[in-house]
Amino acid sequence: MVVVAILAAGRGTRMKSHLPKVLHSLGGRSLVERVLESVKPLSPSRRIAIVGYQGDEVKAAMQSLTDLEFVEQTVQLGTGHAIQQLLPHLEGYTGDLLVLNGDVPLLRTQTLKQLLQTHVQNHNAATILTAHLPEPKGYGRVFCNGENIVQQIVEDKDCTTAQRQNRRINAGVYCFRWQDLAKVLPHLETNNAQKEYYLTDAVTQVGQVMAVDVEDYQEILGINDRLQLATAYDILQRRIKEKWMLAGVTLIDPDSITIDDSVELHTDVIIEPQTHLRGNTVIQTGSCIGPGTLIENSQLGEKVTVRYSVITDSIVQAGSRIGPYAHLRSHAQVGTGCRVGNFVELKNTKLGDRTNVAHLSYLGDTTTGNRVNIGAGTITANYDGTNKHPTKIGDRTSTGSNTVLVAPIALGNDVYVAAGSTLTEDVPDDSLAIARERQVVKPGWLSKRRSEQNSQAKNSS
Amino acid sequence: MVVVAILAAGRGTRMKSHLPKVLHSLGGRSLVERVLESVKPLSPSRRIAIVGYQGDEVKAAMQSLTDLEFVEQTVQLGTGHAIQQLLPHLEGYTGDLLVLNGDVPLLRTQTLKQLLQTHVQNHNAATILTAHLPEPKGYGRVFCNGENIVQQIVEDKDCTTAQRQNRRINAGVYCFRWQDLAKVLPHLETNNAQKEYYLTDAVTQVGQVMAVDVEDYQEILGINDRLQLATAYDILQRRIKEKWMLAGVTLIDPDSITIDDSVELHTDVIIEPQTHLRGNTVIQTGSCIGPGTLIENSQLGEKVTVRYSVITDSIVQAGSRIGPYAHLRSHAQVGTGCRVGNFVELKNTKLGDRTNVAHLSYLGDTTTGNRVNIGAGTITANYDGTNKHPTKIGDRTSTGSNTVLVAPIALGNDVYVAAGSTLTEDVPDDSLAIARERQVVKPGWLSKRRSEQNSQAKNSS
Amino acid sequence: MVVVAILAAGRGTRMKSHLPKVLHSLGGRSLVERVLESVKPLSPSRRIAIVGYQGDEVKAAMQSLTDLEFVEQTVQLGTGHAIQQLLPHLEGYTGDLLVLNGDVPLLRTQTLKQLLQTHVQNHNAATILTAHLPEPKGYGRVFCNGENIVQQIVEDKDCTTAQRQNRRINAGVYCFRWQDLAKVLPHLETNNAQKEYYLTDAVTQVGQVMAVDVEDYQEILGINDRLQLATAYDILQRRIKEKWMLAGVTLIDPDSITIDDSVELHTDVIIEPQTHLRGNTVIQTGSCIGPGTLIENSQLGEKVTVRYSVITDSIVQAGSRIGPYAHLRSHAQVGTGCRVGNFVELKNTKLGDRTNVAHLSYLGDTTTGNRVNIGAGTITANYDGTNKHPTKIGDRTSTGSNTVLVAPIALGNDVYVAAGSTLTEDVPDDSLAIARERQVVKPGWLSKRRSEQNSQAKNSS
Repeated sequence: MVVVAILAAGRGTRMKSHLPKVLHSLGGRSLVERVLESVKPLSPSRRIAIVGYQGDEVKAAMQSLTDLEFVEQTVQLGTGHAIQQLLPHLEGYTGDLLVLNGDVPLLRTQTLKQLLQTHVQNHNAATILTAHLPEPKGYGRVFCNGENIVQQIVEDKDCTTAQRQNRRINAGVYCFRWQDLAKVLPHLETNNAQKEYYLTDAVTQVGQVMAVDVEDYQEILGINDRLQLATAYDILQRRIKEKWMLAGVTLIDPDSITIDDSVELHTDVIIEPQTHLRGNTVIQTGSCIGPGTLIENSQLGEKVTVRYSVITDSIVQAGSRIGPYAHLRSHAQVGTGCRVGNFVELKNTKLGDRTNVAHLSYLGDTTTGNRVNIGAGTITANYDGTNKHPTKIGDRTSTGSNTVLVAPIALGNDVYVAAGSTLTEDVPDDSLAIARERQVVKPGWLSKRRSEQNSQAKNSS
Repeated sequence: MVVVAILAAGRGTRMKSHLPKVLHSLGGRSLVERVLESVKPLSPSRRIAIVGYQGDEVKAAMQSLTDLEFVEQTVQLGTGHAIQQLLPHLEGYTGDLLVLNGDVPLLRTQTLKQLLQTHVQNHNAATILTAHLPEPKGYGRVFCNGENIVQQIVEDKDCTTAQRQNRRINAGVYCFRWQDLAKVLPHLETNNAQKEYYLTDAVTQVGQVMAVDVEDYQEILGINDRLQLATAYDILQRRIKEKWMLAGVTLIDPDSITIDDSVELHTDVIIEPQTHLRGNTVIQTGSCIGPGTLIENSQLGEKVTVRYSVITDSIVQAGSRIGPYAHLRSHAQVGTGCRVGNFVELKNTKLGDRTNVAHLSYLGDTTTGNRVNIGAGTITANYDGTNKHPTKIGDRTSTGSNTVLVAPIALGNDVYVAAGSTLTEDVPDDSLAIARERQVVKPGWLSKRRSEQNSQAKNSS
Repeated sequence: MVVVAILAAGRGTRMKSHLPKVLHSLGGRSLVERVLESVKPLSPSRRIAIVGYQGDEVKAAMQSLTDLEFVEQTVQLGTGHAIQQLLPHLEGYTGDLLVLNGDVPLLRTQTLKQLLQTHVQNHNAATILTAHLPEPKGYGRVFCNGENIVQQIVEDKDCTTAQRQNRRINAGVYCFRWQDLAKVLPHLETNNAQKEYYLTDAVTQVGQVMAVDVEDYQEILGINDRLQLATAYDILQRRIKEKWMLAGVTLIDPDSITIDDSVELHTDVIIEPQTHLRGNTVIQTGSCIGPGTLIENSQLGEKVTVRYSVITDSIVQAGSRIGPYAHLRSHAQVGTGCRVGNFVELKNTKLGDRTNVAHLSYLGDTTTGNRVNIGAGTITANYDGTNKHPTKIGDRTSTGSNTVLVAPIALGNDVYVAAGSTLTEDVPDDSLAIARERQVVKPGWLSKRRSEQNSQAKNSS
């Protein structure tokens, strides 16, 4: 049985932000959300966030997470002080406490499982996570015996030259037998330079302490400024992109591509440069996406191609071709074998199969049948200044260039709308609808105008 | 005299793909096509691809390559077994055999020339390509005497600790005197862990074997998964981009740019970030391309500028400015000093010199004269639902905003089309064409409508 | 008192360019402009550029810089020869001379200040800048005693094996007591392989010479080819981006972003990938810019969002949302809380507050009031083929889809323009304006046309 405590009270001054540090976004989720997700598979009996600086804002941002408890640390007097705040909340608790940092977002669940397992199997009073850093400067060094029993933890500045050669550092992630910790916590002291209560001091007093190495030291990166935030994003992206490449996805120039960890890609998908896949996006086999494309919370079927376009909260079915320069949004749905082309926006619009909207069109709140051809420059006037109205277009219907459909309006099947028409009334099946003036030609017009302009120019000079 | 054999029978399981490995694309050409191109300057007397897994698909993909022969390896029992399949096809052949891998796409012709030259000049029975790898783990080590005569080839797993220090590895590229090899091939055995016939075993039996070092060890990278495919693309791109920079092309943020090796750039071209140049593209001196631009199979003249646009299979002449957000395709031709602007698509359209299509237009199957001005929102209705029709526009003609030209249609020289007109008939020279309704104004309309809406709201409440 | 001399006479053959080397652009400013800017805070009494190859072009490019003097070096006989040209211009001058290279653009002012300070405080005859390079090959090595007094400068090719181990190199940046240098300059000799007059020879003859180390050796990078130009751009970009990240700006995938050093960003700005910020651009707190966006010489207020758009020479006020696929240019001004959407171009246009131009519109030379709604496909016909004319739109006015406003034209407050109308005359307040034909429907049209086409097909077959 384990309770998870997440330290989320710090100000994060070096972020230079109005936002509390743990709420900064890393690949679509906040730092602290990522920590919470990493412990989910451990099925902790309780999850407690210790909040302080802008605590209300932190609580508000996380209130949708059920079963997350908050404990306030009203003044920030160190990590030991933070954990002291748990004493009234965990009275009588006989299990373990896992202490995580809200600003260390890359820890893998697997790493935490190993930490817990070692803790339990060895009946440790405490088990700490350690890492071997290529550049350990600034970190406390951990000295163990041959069986990973911690002998000593020495702060970097207190290290002798010999001790400094030790690259095994304290990652700041702890598992405690709560009852042992609870005895020690009230007696922590602040006799250090910062005048703070250190949790590390508790570690050395609880009993047998063991160290567990993290396999990939990048996991323990803490975020203190935006450079580190960018580094963490880079690490996360490399993880994700390597995973998909090994799973059979071709990334062309992977460094220029970003993929959220919530995205799902099937084999033989090709992602072109400068493409960004976000949220709950799924792309099926044989599709080719990019370059220069953003897809967010959208489902794309097999063999879809998308170039230089933005697709959010939408569905595109198999074999459809999107872009360049298309924008699908607000639950747009594109059927199979469609063509949504250049400078086309679809908003809350459903296209049937084999339907084309190839050029310079805006369709909003529209439903079309199959094999429809929407002419270049066709616009649905779905907004009357107060409300939005629907447009319905039947199978095999064509609209001419620069057609306006003033909604609410319904065109039947096999309708043909003449180019340049603005329609305000429904059109029955199998009809031509036309609303435009006849063409008049005035010969000699330009030469006349030019001579007028010339004489004006002479008069005015 | 040399015959080239290309091993292209492997499945490439780690690619996790429906496509045979050697058909995966690397910078616009398949892996095996790249290998075939690298041997072209050697003028081999025959080129033979040994195919197996999905052999029909491989053959189909390469059938356009004249004089490429295919030999089937119906079961995959190792490289030695693959080359055994050549025995009936090379009976009586007295020249050399160059053995290449269809999944090693970065070998330079120059490297192969050196291999062949060493082979012939030294009357070797076999000559093998070796490389000095910084991390040789997993590769067979090659041990030579002072004159590069191979003494021993030891598989990585069979190496002693001392042997493992040798970083000179077998690159898997061989040149054989065929008659010597042919004698040995039938006697290969499978007494190894994989139970396969190894071509390496033949190497040690044919007679004098010499090793030739590849200068740049990146050339021997084999593609087994999509991570390696991405690495190979990166190596290829660095080669190409370094070449063009040293030749007088400015690349701004070169890491974000990709250039196919089929592209030709002149001096003082500037390429902005996130620009991709593909296929048979030529860009002349003084042009500035990007950011965010894709150009494929297109010719751009001197001092052309292109921003945030897509140009495929098209021609743009000197001094023209394209974009942002233009799409030229299907043999569009833009004359000198033109302006093709924002949200404009040209399809199979030829613009004369000093012609502007500046905003929100689609021209398809259109030919214009010189000094034409196409108004914003002008659209050629070139498709009647069944066929495409041409539009012809004379010199110095202007179309007003939101003009529709219903093709087939011809406007003469010096024509002026009034804004908002939809034209269906030809217009002679020097004429004004107009097809729109007079403006009517209904005063007090909005206040009336609002009071109606208010009273409705009251009634319904 | 210091006079600055900038060596800008070289041809720069390896640039392979029609442009003189020092005029090549690095992040929006030429190499030599960057050098000039770095010395500005030193308040030099005179700044003298020594020009030679394509000197007229160099002078023309820099003629706008007041108080910059030019001295011609008609033949290029080395750095010593270049400085000899100053003799007639500095007769009787008793201060110091700082010698910089026009193709070394990354030197920090701080570095130059340290050089000057050391020079003056130690009463040196000359003070030279040195750097410790990881790969010093090719550079002259500087040997000093314990007090940084230069003992010897040895060219790379003249170094003994032991001397070559010294990684401290001569950066080619010098400060001289002019009177000491002037005595030595006429006696320089050309007894070297290049038959050139070397300024280094003068250094060893003037008296006490001291060396000052540059802290960051990247500062001394000289630009000789476009690879080095790309490297310098990369160094500059890292400097700039690191600065902004530490100041509280989030860069998502910083490697894909470029930011000119003239740009100003406030805290809690978020920059998405593939975004380029150039010129005198300012972005205020809480704004989110990108992906795929170019902003040049523009001011953006708080909480502005921009996606996949181009904004040049424009202003966007707080809370407005731009794009995807918008183009603002030529002094466009967008008020607070506006929405400028998909495929919209604003040119020299001012939008009031809470005004929407959401789809497929071009507004040129237009001024709108507040709470205006511009319908999809609305176009201002601001150009009559000869002149540009203004459009004025009052508060709370709406235009229907595919409206054309033929300028000069003014719409009052609370005007409603019916969809598909082309307006040529002013519209008073509170009016509906309409200019379109009634809708006519011809039933059975499509089936009739199809049967006609079929019978034609039969007849022609």
